[in-house]
Amino acid sequence: MNERARAAGDIGKQRIEALSDGLYAIALTLLVLDLKVPPLGEAVGNEALVHALYALAPKALTWILSFWVMAILWMSQVRIYRLVHSLSRNMVRLELLQLACVSLMPFSTSLLGEYGSTPAAAVLYSANMLAVTLLGALRTRELLHAPRVHANLIDDQVRRALKIRAYGLPSCAAVAFVLAFFFPAWNLLAMLPMILVRTLRSA
Amino acid sequence: MNERARAAGDIGKQRIEALSDGLYAIALTLLVLDLKVPPLGEAVGNEALVHALYALAPKALTWILSFWVMAILWMSQVRIYRLVHSLSRNMVRLELLQLACVSLMPFSTSLLGEYGSTPAAAVLYSANMLAVTLLGALRTRELLHAPRVHANLIDDQVRRALKIRAYGLPSCAAVAFVLAFFFPAWNLLAMLPMILVRTLRSA
Amino acid sequence: MNERARAAGDIGKQRIEALSDGLYAIALTLLVLDLKVPPLGEAVGNEALVHALYALAPKALTWILSFWVMAILWMSQVRIYRLVHSLSRNMVRLELLQLACVSLMPFSTSLLGEYGSTPAAAVLYSANMLAVTLLGALRTRELLHAPRVHANLIDDQVRRALKIRAYGLPSCAAVAFVLAFFFPAWNLLAMLPMILVRTLRSA
Amino acid sequence: MNERARAAGDIGKQRIEALSDGLYAIALTLLVLDLKVPPLGEAVGNEALVHALYALAPKALTWILSFWVMAILWMSQVRIYRLVHSLSRNMVRLELLQLACVSLMPFSTSLLGEYGSTPAAAVLYSANMLAVTLLGALRTRELLHAPRVHANLIDDQVRRALKIRAYGLPSCAAVAFVLAFFFPAWNLLAMLPMILVRTLRSA
Repeated sequence: MNERARAAGDIGKQRIEALSDGLYAIALTLLVLDLKVPPLGEAVGNEALVHALYALAPKALTWILSFWVMAILWMSQVRIYRLVHSLSRNMVRLELLQLACVSLMPFSTSLLGEYGSTPAAAVLYSANMLAVTLLGALRTRELLHAPRVHANLIDDQVRRALKIRAYGLPSCAAVAFVLAFFFPAWNLLAMLPMILVRTLRSA
Repeated sequence: MNERARAAGDIGKQRIEALSDGLYAIALTLLVLDLKVPPLGEAVGNEALVHALYALAPKALTWILSFWVMAILWMSQVRIYRLVHSLSRNMVRLELLQLACVSLMPFSTSLLGEYGSTPAAAVLYSANMLAVTLLGALRTRELLHAPRVHANLIDDQVRRALKIRAYGLPSCAAVAFVLAFFFPAWNLLAMLPMILVRTLRSA
Repeated sequence: MNERARAAGDIGKQRIEALSDGLYAIALTLLVLDLKVPPLGEAVGNEALVHALYALAPKALTWILSFWVMAILWMSQVRIYRLVHSLSRNMVRLELLQLACVSLMPFSTSLLGEYGSTPAAAVLYSANMLAVTLLGALRTRELLHAPRVHANLIDDQVRRALKIRAYGLPSCAAVAFVLAFFFPAWNLLAMLPMILVRTLRSA
Repeated sequence: MNERARAAGDIGKQRIEALSDGLYAIALTLLVLDLKVPPLGEAVGNEALVHALYALAPKALTWILSFWVMAILWMSQVRIYRLVHSLSRNMVRLELLQLACVSLMPFSTSLLGEYGSTPAAAVLYSANMLAVTLLGALRTRELLHAPRVHANLIDDQVRRALKIRAYGLPSCAAVAFVLAFFFPAWNLLAMLPMILVRTLRSA
């Protein structure tokens, strides 16, 4: 670790990475807590249990969606932090703000799983996703212009890939947010393009 | 860390390891949350409490089984990552998919502990275990053929040990899965051979 | 790592950092568990849900406050540990004591969110914040006088910044604690000066 | 990291440390979940809340005891791992077994906090503590005789300190276990000598 290369108030990235890994791990695991074993009494038949489990399907879907979005967010933090050697004070604040929004995801997911067909739940979930992805875009923007990056690791291709990811996600989330007022639940289909973009880029 | 040895989209293994360690730690701890202190009212006698605790025995058993399976999974990730210096994009996806299935284990365990004698619970638990172990086998297969391994650390003996573990676990889980439809709860005895194999190999 | 530089009973800082990062990550995430999805029955209208969500506003506020305070605490631990290479036995005890108080924050926060207008809740929350920040001040004081610091990293400006943070936070918390007996809930405004100080210092 | 110094099946200690830190962090935080905000209805008076909080006192006491014991356990793992460079297969199993018992502590603590005056709860809690400390003693014993230690870090004084800690804790726990059948709750005073020993040793 090269202490001299750091600006005065800078902080090494290791601790922020450790806090993030912990917080993502917990938030990802808490998402599942919403899948509760249905209380059916002692002498429950197999049929009744199967039905109760089918009733969990919407919650399972929102779980998968949230897990997928959060995994992408985590991945893009990993990718961008690989290019950076230390973090400015502002960057750390941005990061903590994003972690706060990430830690809110289990709540939003739970709300969506329970009341997915109401605009209120869909709006709040999309707003959470928008906040989280927007803060990610801000981070990418700041890091790409900061003197703290390992410049030799960033060529034009890497830069383009980072930008597509950084601006694509909040764009989709913004569309989902607007649509949430009119087509709750279905509005989340607006997240799908991100899969296509990723597939295209790999081609 | 040798940056040059990495392919363009590769990721160092440290972050995935940290996320995994966190997620396993939480999932392992959440397993216990299913063991709930029985609510018996204020003036409970000792006998009543002892009976209530005995009634937790099936849940305790499923806890032990899940803890044991997840510990083996974690161990095999540790062993295989020791041989690897970086992870391809596909590998990371595989890993996140497996973590999603691992984070589902507390739910399946809870279901099994509550309704272990119904086929639905036994099938879902076995399916979860099958998914988790199968993804582990895919990982081992991909890593053994990838150019990212520390080749000097893998001799024939290590390779054979990795394969036995990688394919043995999902094989047992597949048998348990099929048997779950017919002999719920008892089907999990199909996991036992893994202990024997491990004991044999140490001999 | 220079083993010789350590006193006999000293401990490297890595493990304490890892435990702290984990514990903070969990405590930060548990804060949100208090925001529970309101149970409204199956056929809930959008209006009813919006109202139920508005009713969560006080809990959301206490969540933000606690997240903010705990993020500051974590940040100041990060900043001070950057200057230190190992920890004395006493330091580790102080740290564990602080972690105990940090792990209590979700409970105090929950209490405040539920009964914020009663003195009892406001007093207990402020006491918890006082304990946590006071232990942080003790740590800063001990570290600044200990032979374990990387002396070359501490100039007068760093030292002053550390002291402002270390003594400012418990001072605010002490005022909040006293005011809690008379103006529950409003007493927490006493934490605001910390934002101003931080803004001033950046100027 | 010196790969050659390891025996064939050995594992580096970093991953086990990370899993332990995560699991301890979670278990320590879950202990607090037992302190639940009392549900008192909307228009609760301050007096009623104060009474409800006083009623939490026994749970607060068991929380402190468990936090203290688990902090000591974690500390002794930290101290002993500092002396070791890699872990044998058996050591890892021992460690995972201990982590299983540690993850059970929140349950035992919860049981003790709820039904502390019944022998069943006191016996189960003491048994948990006995298992956890006994496994710690086994670990110390195995490590002190293993070829994996950094021999130069262990002099006679360190060795004696490790042994006092390793055998003192399970001895106290064993006494507490036996007394639990006759003097539930009071039996835990048998843990007190450990504080004295530690104080004596520091003198």
